[in-house]
This record gives sequence, structure tokens and C-alpha cells, in this order.
Amino acid sequence: MNIVMLVFERITVLDVIGPYEVLARLPGAQVKMVGPERGVVRSDNGAVGLAADLAIGEVSSADILLVPGGFGTRLLEKDERVKAWIRDVDATTRVTASVCTGALLLAAAGVLRGRRANTHWALRERLRELGAVPEASRVVRDGKYASAAGVSAGIDLALALAAELASPEVAQAIQLGIEYDPAPPFDAGSPERAPAAIREAVLGRIRARDAELGAG
Amino acid sequence: MNIVMLVFERITVLDVIGPYEVLARLPGAQVKMVGPERGVVRSDNGAVGLAADLAIGEVSSADILLVPGGFGTRLLEKDERVKAWIRDVDATTRVTASVCTGALLLAAAGVLRGRRANTHWALRERLRELGAVPEASRVVRDGKYASAAGVSAGIDLALALAAELASPEVAQAIQLGIEYDPAPPFDAGSPERAPAAIREAVLGRIRARDAELGAG
Repeated sequence: MNIVMLVFERITVLDVIGPYEVLARLPGAQVKMVGPERGVVRSDNGAVGLAADLAIGEVSSADILLVPGGFGTRLLEKDERVKAWIRDVDATTRVTASVCTGALLLAAAGVLRGRRANTHWALRERLRELGAVPEASRVVRDGKYASAAGVSAGIDLALALAAELASPEVAQAIQLGIEYDPAPPFDAGSPERAPAAIREAVLGRIRARDAELGAG
Repeated sequence: MNIVMLVFERITVLDVIGPYEVLARLPGAQVKMVGPERGVVRSDNGAVGLAADLAIGEVSSADILLVPGGFGTRLLEKDERVKAWIRDVDATTRVTASVCTGALLLAAAGVLRGRRANTHWALRERLRELGAVPEASRVVRDGKYASAAGVSAGIDLALALAAELASPEVAQAIQLGIEYDPAPPFDAGSPERAPAAIREAVLGRIRARDAELGAG
């Protein structure tokens, strides 16, 4: 199983590493980290460097294509070469998946037209502007498309894919292997249950940063 | 706040990226990825390359030291230079933390002697052999030491540290920012609740791999 994960400048690293840690454990999985160019890409704050071992020009198909998020997707939405590559690889996949704002890039590339999808809660309405149908579920499936909510939701998405592509037993073994028995110290992970003042502050910061990059 | 994360060959990448995605969002946080040498280290399966931007010889102190796990910790347990560095940096920290088998490396370095700690469930008894006191909690605190259970538990550990080092409000804002509202599709993330056959299979694989590296 050929699993291709797109990596790029200003990536949110957990978006790609959560699913990687699950999907790489599937029997027969071969995971490739693929960037616009070969080389190390940097997280938004610069603190993490992640190797793109292949460039998009070297990869033309995938069983699973995963597009993670991060503020960098705002910039890639304007990159015709990357969007054409997404369309070409998507035409070969069994599953095309996104985490967080990766869905906005998939939508900008045109592959989610009329499809139900999710993204980070703070930017969900942008999915509609880009032709998709936003749905506020942690993991959304529509045909071969699978999209997760923000950042950490990629782990849940990947476990659901593991169950579907291998078996529920394989998915459970992977879950136990990564001891995914989450126990957040607060119940503040969703905009519905976080305190309103915290929600507004986070929303403001994310939208301001997104608008800044969109105008850039 | 100077946050140092040790990275090394055969690292479990989620062990370090889970906490990174939380702690990097703390006000004033400066995260550094530090390896035995500068350069790109590889995950156990080779599919992920992570940049060590500094070598341990260039870093002598930290407010928070985080040691992630992976089979590579088995090899570092024999590395006197890395263990001496851990002891030296630990002497300067406000918090010394581990995820998964990172605790085994901390214990091998001698900084967890007589301390309560946790690691991956499959290797918990090795903590005792290395002089620590194993405790089967998702996040264990003993004085300035904080240790998480396997792999994904680093996210919960980091949120607890965020609440302590900044405030509960800051931790909640971070949790909402990474939309950490987990919804695993199965209840198989702990050895107590996973089906017995799956538990034995995972246990066998992990112990065999660990023993192989320990003998190597």
C-alpha cells in the first residue's frame, strides 16, 4: 500500500505525524513524505524541520493521498503546480484524505466540489467558498474522500481508515500500540464546549493569521 | 521558556510531535530539536526524517527537557555521552519530561532513581529494572519529573504541563487550537480494555523488537 503524504512550508506537523504513526503500521504500508521540492520543510514557527524525501514531480500515484494542514495551505491554494499534482494523484487513489486545513487545499484544487468535508472549526465556512459542503464531524467520509477536523483529529481519521483498509482488529492493534487512550485534562477541545471567551480569542488569532496569508 | 526536545535515530515521531504541537504554543516558548549530532534523524521504519537543528554539545540547559521514545532509546541506553548530557541538562530544568520509552532512557541515565514514572505499557517493568517505580497512569508526576504512557499520551502530558506552567486558560486555548476532542473509533487504547488476543500479539511484537535491540 503506497501512502503519500504531502509536506510543505508552514505545515502543522501533528496533522501529518498523527496519521503517519497510525497508517505506517498497516501491513504492507510504504509511506512517502513528498514536498513541492525535495528537502527539509519547516513548521509555521520554524522549530521543526521535516524531510520531504521526494518532490511532487517524482510521484504520480498513490493508494492513499494525505494532505495535512497548517497556515502553509493558504499559500499553496495559489500554487497551480501543486494543485495540478493533487488532481493527478487524486485520480489514482483509493482514498484521498485531509487533516485540518488540508481540506481547504483539496477543495481549492477542485477535488471536493459538492462533497461533504470538514476542516479546522475556525475556518469551516471557507470550505463552502471553495465549493465543498462543510460538515462539523470529527471525521467526514464522502465516497473515497476522508477529511478530519483540526490537527489532532488526524489520529481518529487514520484509525477509521485502518479499520476500513485492513480490519477492525488491525486498527485496534495499532491503537493499542500507540496507547491511544486519550485523557485530555480539560474538556475544551471543541468550539461547542470550550469557554466562550477562549473560543473567541482562538478564533480571532486564527482568522487574523489566515487573512494575512490570504492577502499576501 | 527554553524547551529542548531530544531527537535520535529510530524515534517514534508522534512522541515528540504531540508535545511539540502543544508546548510550542505556550507564550514565550522557544522549542529546539536537539540530536546526538546535527542532521536529520529517521523514524524506526525510515519513512520520516526529522531535523536535529542542534547537537547535544551545543545545548547545556533547558527550562523543559523532553525525551521522547521509540526503539532508538534502547540503543541510547548504552550511550554514555547522551546519558551524561541528560544528567547535565536535567540539573538545570524546571521540568524534565518523557513520553513512552523516553522514560527508560531517563531512568538509564539515572535521573529517575526511586521516582514514580510511566512508559509504554508493554515495557513498564523495565522501569523497575532501571531503578524507577512504575506507575500505570497516563501522566505521572513526581517532583519536577513528568512521564507519559505510550506514544499518544504525550499530548495529554503536554496539556497538563501547559496548565501548570502557564494557566488552565492557556492550556484550554491550546487544546481548542489543536481541536483535541478525541473520538477514537474503538476502545482499544489500553491493555486493560483491548481484546486479550490483540494485547498478546502487540506485546509479543514489542518485546521481541526491544530484546533484539537490547542484545544488539
